[in-house]
This record gives sequence, structure tokens and C-alpha cells, in this order.
Amino acid sequence: MLKRSHDLVILGGVAAGTSAAAAAIRENKEKDVVIYQKEPFISYGGCGLPYAITGDVKNVDDVIAFSPEEFEKKKGAKVYTEHEAYDVDFDNKLVYIRNSKEEIEVSYDKLVISTGASPIIPGFDAIGNDGVFKMRNPNDDKAILNFIEKKSPKKAVIIGGGFIGVETAEGLLERGLQVDLIEGLDSLMGDIEPELHEDLLAKMEEEKVKVHLNNMVKNIVKKEDGFEVQTNNKSINTDMVIVAIGVRPNTQFLKDSGISMLKNGAIIINEKSETNIKDVYSAGDCASVKHLITGEDTYFPLGTTANKQGKIAGKNVFSTEKDEFKGIVGSFITKFKDLEYTRTGLTLKAAKEKGFDVDSVVIKSISRAGYYTGGGRIKMKMVFDKKTGRILGAHYIGKEVHARVNTMVSLIYKNSTVFDLLNMDLPYAPPFSPVWDINLIAASQAIKKI
Amino acid sequence: MLKRSHDLVILGGVAAGTSAAAAAIRENKEKDVVIYQKEPFISYGGCGLPYAITGDVKNVDDVIAFSPEEFEKKKGAKVYTEHEAYDVDFDNKLVYIRNSKEEIEVSYDKLVISTGASPIIPGFDAIGNDGVFKMRNPNDDKAILNFIEKKSPKKAVIIGGGFIGVETAEGLLERGLQVDLIEGLDSLMGDIEPELHEDLLAKMEEEKVKVHLNNMVKNIVKKEDGFEVQTNNKSINTDMVIVAIGVRPNTQFLKDSGISMLKNGAIIINEKSETNIKDVYSAGDCASVKHLITGEDTYFPLGTTANKQGKIAGKNVFSTEKDEFKGIVGSFITKFKDLEYTRTGLTLKAAKEKGFDVDSVVIKSISRAGYYTGGGRIKMKMVFDKKTGRILGAHYIGKEVHARVNTMVSLIYKNSTVFDLLNMDLPYAPPFSPVWDINLIAASQAIKKI
Repeated sequence: MLKRSHDLVILGGVAAGTSAAAAAIRENKEKDVVIYQKEPFISYGGCGLPYAITGDVKNVDDVIAFSPEEFEKKKGAKVYTEHEAYDVDFDNKLVYIRNSKEEIEVSYDKLVISTGASPIIPGFDAIGNDGVFKMRNPNDDKAILNFIEKKSPKKAVIIGGGFIGVETAEGLLERGLQVDLIEGLDSLMGDIEPELHEDLLAKMEEEKVKVHLNNMVKNIVKKEDGFEVQTNNKSINTDMVIVAIGVRPNTQFLKDSGISMLKNGAIIINEKSETNIKDVYSAGDCASVKHLITGEDTYFPLGTTANKQGKIAGKNVFSTEKDEFKGIVGSFITKFKDLEYTRTGLTLKAAKEKGFDVDSVVIKSISRAGYYTGGGRIKMKMVFDKKTGRILGAHYIGKEVHARVNTMVSLIYKNSTVFDLLNMDLPYAPPFSPVWDINLIAASQAIKKI
Repeated sequence: MLKRSHDLVILGGVAAGTSAAAAAIRENKEKDVVIYQKEPFISYGGCGLPYAITGDVKNVDDVIAFSPEEFEKKKGAKVYTEHEAYDVDFDNKLVYIRNSKEEIEVSYDKLVISTGASPIIPGFDAIGNDGVFKMRNPNDDKAILNFIEKKSPKKAVIIGGGFIGVETAEGLLERGLQVDLIEGLDSLMGDIEPELHEDLLAKMEEEKVKVHLNNMVKNIVKKEDGFEVQTNNKSINTDMVIVAIGVRPNTQFLKDSGISMLKNGAIIINEKSETNIKDVYSAGDCASVKHLITGEDTYFPLGTTANKQGKIAGKNVFSTEKDEFKGIVGSFITKFKDLEYTRTGLTLKAAKEKGFDVDSVVIKSISRAGYYTGGGRIKMKMVFDKKTGRILGAHYIGKEVHARVNTMVSLIYKNSTVFDLLNMDLPYAPPFSPVWDINLIAASQAIKKI
């Protein structure tokens, strides 16, 4: 078996891995830093992939920040693509890696595991056929676009109503397809607040997406002229299928290695991106993150967190002064056509489950002065502690919601209350806001309930 | 002399006055609440006036929320328009008011002074001629639009490069005029950070607005075919002139009344909207506001503050439990064409003058993921305390800046530091932000200087 040895071995080179490599080399230029990456490319913005389908990203390859060669040249880390870790021996500081030709025993001084996550693909009959896709890396996008161009499909089924499924629905609509969106639970977009879910469903209907809630997919079967998607309730014939049920951390190779994981296989890390194993760090979609409101280690795989955790891991491997990433408050933003959805903090249901004594207000308002052109409606739900007024969550659907949620991210970080928010000096002009911003109205309404 | 007596007399009925009336009646429906308003209309959004010139507000009257009759019916306060206060006798709780026909001695139990501010109009020769305008109330807008329609002017001079002048420049450009913008100081937009001012000037040039800085206007003279605007440096011939030099609180009638004022005549109020005179409250553009960073009573006349102070004044007049509006952090937003400018907190210069030991960073970034369509450049300057990292100011120019500034308003309110900001969980998706939002980059750069 081929043997190698490096100062820092990084497994996985997308958001967290490349951030870690760059930070490690900034910290200590003398060290030998190597990325082993399973896919043929590194450093891509996975969050941009649905937008290559909509056409808002011109070319799929635009989401790739660096080729392996560019990354090596500019950042100074050696990159091996199409190399996958298949085993570890933490006691002897070894990682076992294979490519199509050989197996390699790699000895490390420090290890960062940033192998990301992969879509969950159940073993349906038609999996593997051209026409059944996932949406995770640039090749998936290219395969979908190629299929659309070559086969001119009329109908698509998306399995999974999370944000990837919803964003991909927008993309396929833009490409002229008729879209059926199947979700096993009673709501799209995970645990979206029900008052906001209404608005999303109404928009889906307006855009002629057929939404099938409470439909568990049992099988996808290849037919002569396409596919049949079979759920517990119905069968839908279609020309193509996209499976976007969810993701699972790529940590199967760590089974029985002694590394601590959440139930779903995410590696548990602390604020310094350290695992329970000496000299082993982790970051990104294969790792946990601390939720700052609940204090719990949780799984909330997003690109921004991956970048931050990776940067912290890379900085810390060669540094005695350790940097920290304290965690998240659960911020998220997406859109379906011109309907934007964003949130930060907890839902009402989650806050109750975590033992908070909570109440909420639902506010309908507008994003600009009523007499000013453009803008549109916003619906907001704010969750707060009934006794102290502490803000625990803020959820928005509508237009120009990004400006609203950011106010609340900061307030939640700083353990603020609705009394802090009530008369806050948010900048106002008619093209940007009504004189009473929706957040101020929410505070005023919440205070009446305290 | 006609005599009247009311439980609550409110002088002025635009933002602060109508907010006070509505809040007072919500607090106690039994009381007799009366607004005396100098202009023929009440309750208008002055901030919307420049946008009736651009056309983004369809009709000038759209900025009027309530007619006097509607306000009386819906809110329950009696409204007298075209009634102006000309004297007070606080010892005997009397206000002297006149209209075109008579003078009235009005006895009050409680008084709210919300007379607003008026444009400063120097005594230039041509003042009073059709073609020389101010921009303060709906009639000004109508006169300008009427003049443009009837006379088809080709050229306009705007005197004053503050935000009203700049917004009006956009309006006149949209109406097809060639615009000269004259400013006595060396910068448009007041104390805008110089690094941001560059971008504003470049945009002005791109849009063919001729900006004349360091030009004090000495006179405006009527000519046969228009006007000549004479400065200390040059003369400019034009078809119309808009004077937007600044505003002065409408408090001349309170001279020698014993009420405490700032140097410029703004009534000094506390957090409860109380003046130094018993049972006399004030709010809005005629009043001071506390700056929460410096702790000083300052003059920062804006619509949002007027609404808040008015609401507090109205609530408090009839209530034993007094509400408070703590003050502002100096937030502001405007735009010129598609270039947006916003700020919160102090400038570098102001922070130094106030005795802070400060430093700053200037960051150039973009508003969306680089590979995603739309969005644009943002330049940001952040001002912070060199030792503690406390954030003292954040200033932005470019695209989609509203979402950025709101993060910082909250942080400044909560006395936060750049360390708080560094890894904050701001919501990210390619249509809304790059993976490292400009605020996070600023924090990272600032920390290197601490």
C-alpha cells in the first residue's frame, strides 16, 4: 500500500475543507497541507446549484470558486480529487484513502474531517436511470440541464419539499416544465410556521405547482415513456424525477472509530471545531453545530456555517491561541419566485418543546411606504418569552424580508427583548420601509401580551 | 378674543401631532383632544414628497394618510387646519392661535407642541417668484409639478446637497431636466464618510448632475427668461430653483416663554417627551432627541422619530405610567437613482470629536453571491473603539444596503463589539448575500486592528 505523511490532512474540499486549508496556511506557511476530495471538483457553492436551473446563475461552473490547480496555486494546499477516505485509525493517526487505482495509507499530524453530506437516496427501482436525479454537486446540475435540453421533458416530479426541492421547483418552472412536488410530511419547508406555510402554498398554487403533502414515496418505477412515482396515496406519471429528501453526513467511514456523533452521524464538535479525538477537527455539513438558544449540539447544515467552522478549524490546528465559533441562532433564507422566506431563532413549537414559556404574534404589513411603488406584503411571526419579553424567533414570508430578519438576528444574539425592539431607530425612507417597520409593529403587539 | 378650552391641545398635526392625538385618545377616550395645524392638511408623509417628483409616488396626495375629516372620524380628535399658534402663556396654561379671520385664546390642561420645522429660506431677491420652490409639504410638490408641466423648464438649480436636495435631483432628472446641485460645504449629504462620498459624486457625474461644492449662494435674481443663481464663485442661469438648504424648528412663537431649547430652537425633551414646563410635551421636528451613543440631546429630525416621540407624548399626557422613547443611534437611509446610502451610529470624525479612541475599516464587497444575477457593489465603512472593539458606526453605499445596516442598528443599540459580529449567523442564500456578508468581512478586518 502506498504510504504518505502530511502535517495536516483535510478530508473533503468544498466549503469547510477549503476554508480550513486556507486558514491553516495563513496561520503557518511552513506546514504541509493536503486536501483529499472525493468528487472531481472542490470549492463550489452548493447553494447556487438550484439557480443554475432557474438561469439566475449563467453557467453551472460559475458556482465553482477555484479549480484544484487554482486552489493549489493561490492558497498553497495540495489537492487530490477523486480520493475518498474509507477508514481511519485514530490511535496511530492514520487515514485510509482510495482512488480508482489504489489505496493509500496517509499519516497525519492534524486531521480535519470536512466530508460534507450526501443526499438520502432510498433504493427505489428506477434509481440510476437517466431521468432520476439528485441536486448536490455541479455534475447533478449538468445532468439535469442536459436531460432537459436533449429530451425536452414536459413534466417533473420533485420528491421532497424542503428548500432544495422548493428552489428546484422554481428552476424547473423557469425551464417550462409542469412540476409536481411530493412531501411526506404535512408541510413544505420543514418546520415553517403554519401561518407562513399558507402563503407559500398559495404562491405554489398561483404558479401551478401541484403540491402533494402527506405523501410518502414508496417507489419510482421506469416506464416505457418515463417514470411512475408511487406514493402511499397515488401514482404520478412523469418524464423526470428529482430526489431531494434530505441529506446525511458523510461519516460512514468513521463507524466504530470512537469519534462522537449525533444520532444522524454528524460529528460532534466544540466551539473550536475540535472533536473528542486528539488532533482531529471537523467542520461543515458532516459536523454538529451549537444552537445558541437551546445550548444543544444540533444538525443545521448550511454553507455559511461550513465556512465559519472550517476557518476556525484551519486556524486552530496550528495555533496555540484557539479561535471560537460560538454557534448559530438558526438563521435561514430562501425564495420561491418572488416570494421570500426567512427565519432566525426558534419556531413557536420548538420553543415550547424546549421548555420556554412562550407566546407569539403574527403581523401582516408591507415592505415600503404604502404610497411608494414596488415592494409588497410581508407576513411575520415573532416568538417571545411571555414573562421577560425575550425574543426567541422571527419568521417572515413576502417581499424584502432580508432587511427585516437581520435586525432580529442581532437582537437574538444579544438576548434582547421586545422592549429593546419597540422603539428602535431603524433607518426609514419610503423606498425602503413604512414609517413603522414590521418589526416595530411586532414589538408593540407582543408587549400587549406580556 | 374668542376663547376655548380643551383637555389636550396639540399644536401641529403632521407625523408627531397626529401620532400624539391617536395615542392620547387610545389612552383616554373621555378627553377632549384638539389639533391646531398651520397648513391646510395634516398627517402627510413628508419623506415621500421627493418621490412624487420622481414618479415613484403616483399622486402627491397619496402621501396624505388622513384628511382632517377622516382623522376626526377615525381617531376622534377635533382638527382645526390653517390655525397657527403665535404666543403662549405657560403660567396660565394658555396658547394664542390665529387663523385668517380671528385670534383665539386657547386654555389647555395638557399641551403637545409638534409644530415641526420649516425650510430655511434666505432673503434672496427672487424668493416668492413662481419658479423658486421649497420642498416641504404637498403644495410645494404640486407647485413644482405644475410649473414643470406648464413651463417645460429645461434646467433646474437645486440649492443644498443634503438628502432632500439629492432626492429632488433624482426627481428632476426623471422629469427630463438638466440639474445643477449647489452645496456650500465640501460634501453632499452632510457628514457622509469621505470614502462613500466619492461613490455618490461618481454616480452624480454618471447621471449628468453638475455638482458645485464649496459654493455659497449669495443671491437668486429674476431674469427675463428664468433665474440667475449667484454664488461666491460663479453664476448659473436656470429655469427653476429649488431651495433645500436645511430646516429650522417652528418654535419662534416660544421665544422668551421659558421653555428650554437647543441653540437652533429645538425644544429639549426627555425620554417621556416632556419639556421643562409642567404639562407641556413636545415631539417631532421641533424637538430634540437623545443620541444614545453620545448621550447628548441633539437635533436629528426624521419621520420615524417624530412618530415615536408623538406616540409617547400622546400616551403620557393622560397616563400615570409613563412610556419612554430612549433615543436614537443616528440611523438614516436614502437613495439616488439605484445607489443607496445608509448609516447608523457615528462617523469616524464625530466619534473622535466625542472623545472615543477609534479606528475604522473600509470594505468593498457585493450584495449577492458573485455568480448570481443582479445585486451590485457595496462599500462600507465601520467605525469602532480601538480597545474594546465596540461598534460605533456603520455606513454603506451601493446596492441592497438596507439588509446590512439593520444588523448593525441592533448591534449598536446593544453596545456590541466586532467580536460579537465576527461569526454571526446571518441568513445566507445566493440571491441575498455572498457567503461572507460584508458585515462579517468588516468584523474580521477590524479585529486585525485591535
